[in-house]
Amino acid sequence: MQSKTLKQIKNLQQKKYRYEFREFFVEGIKSVKEALAFPNVLSIVIEGSRRDEKEFAEIIKTAEKKNVPVEFCGRREVEYLKTTESFPGIMAIIEMPEVVFEDLMDERPIICLDEIKDPGNLGTIIRTADWFGIHNIILSEDSVDPYNEKTVRSTMGSIFRVKILNKYKLSAVLEKIKKEDYKIFAFKANSENEWDGKIPPKSVLIFGSESHGIRAEYVDFADKLYSIKGKGSAESLNLAVSVGIVLSKL
Amino acid sequence: MQSKTLKQIKNLQQKKYRYEFREFFVEGIKSVKEALAFPNVLSIVIEGSRRDEKEFAEIIKTAEKKNVPVEFCGRREVEYLKTTESFPGIMAIIEMPEVVFEDLMDERPIICLDEIKDPGNLGTIIRTADWFGIHNIILSEDSVDPYNEKTVRSTMGSIFRVKILNKYKLSAVLEKIKKEDYKIFAFKANSENEWDGKIPPKSVLIFGSESHGIRAEYVDFADKLYSIKGKGSAESLNLAVSVGIVLSKL
Repeated sequence: MQSKTLKQIKNLQQKKYRYEFREFFVEGIKSVKEALAFPNVLSIVIEGSRRDEKEFAEIIKTAEKKNVPVEFCGRREVEYLKTTESFPGIMAIIEMPEVVFEDLMDERPIICLDEIKDPGNLGTIIRTADWFGIHNIILSEDSVDPYNEKTVRSTMGSIFRVKILNKYKLSAVLEKIKKEDYKIFAFKANSENEWDGKIPPKSVLIFGSESHGIRAEYVDFADKLYSIKGKGSAESLNLAVSVGIVLSKL
Repeated sequence: MQSKTLKQIKNLQQKKYRYEFREFFVEGIKSVKEALAFPNVLSIVIEGSRRDEKEFAEIIKTAEKKNVPVEFCGRREVEYLKTTESFPGIMAIIEMPEVVFEDLMDERPIICLDEIKDPGNLGTIIRTADWFGIHNIILSEDSVDPYNEKTVRSTMGSIFRVKILNKYKLSAVLEKIKKEDYKIFAFKANSENEWDGKIPPKSVLIFGSESHGIRAEYVDFADKLYSIKGKGSAESLNLAVSVGIVLSKL
């Protein structure tokens, strides 16, 4: 493979380069296949020794049809590129979508996450949102990057089907949303109202970080606070689990 | 600290020693505090330089009252003991509870997991179960060990409040349960019945692994199959999220 591509993938493991080039990468057959359904695949890298395996051969064919360049890497390059113990045999470089505020104004519910830090949890939330047909997501400016490889991996391909607004000051975004007649609902432990899922389509659901919950400045935006009632003794729910429960009742 | 304790904690990072000694360990203030509410704490290790911090001092007091030995470790020992980048300053060695079939026969719902492999996911499921007041858990004999440090960490203290049956052949356990007049419900993608949470108290809810779902031999035990309906395009839900959604509707 070209040393340029090799270096680029290595670069894209760092946030600053992802945003400099506005590119990220996905790994594994499933994700690359899903990626190819969209127009923004820039190139594909396959482990040379596996190019004849049925699933890889199919991807190569699809890529050719779509004029997506395919390169092959050797064992040494795999060692250099891999982000986990075992390399899944295939990666793709993807053009990062440019999402602006107006893209989310489609009169459908929006999930908003305040200061989410765990990349796996964020990926699971994106996957769960996609499962329930929610495709609008806002992240506070200090959240983890949704295009880092751990998040992308745990979205299991759902990263391609959501619109993520993540570069703007959350307070400014929420102010603007209020003006568009959206209702804002915040999930906060021990709030009086038990979540019943009854919301208008133009709604924003805000969730806080695992460790601190929602910051006060954003709670102030909420038209109503909700909580998920438990019966046991655990102090809290995992954030992705909470989001799943909330969305399942919509 | 005694080199014996040091060596023992290191040993307990391996499954075989955990079961040889029937001990495991927990890390962090929150977990150690929760542990002290139960009688099975064998000893506590605190980073010596932090012994005067308020929360540590309180734990030392509680431990004294309960005759739980406390040892202090130095910087070098921390390097040797820690299981993550940063050491949380405190650990406790815990006696592993001996759970037998009869312990679960309290006429309350049981969660059963077939071949769960991800320790963090298992921990999150235990935490979620505890949140919803479900304390009976069965793991297939080839599941990840619930007392490994990653699982314990992600239970966030709930490990102390659940009963986990994990040493027996799952098919034998399910056969026995059937004879006790429990109903068995299995969650399987694309099953016709949408989950409504309406089950008798004597119920077993079986979930399969993330990658393969429930193995056929266990599906055969089910009185009814359920699925969680989505509206989007994601292929599946994360297992812990699925369990959360299911339990939230009970």
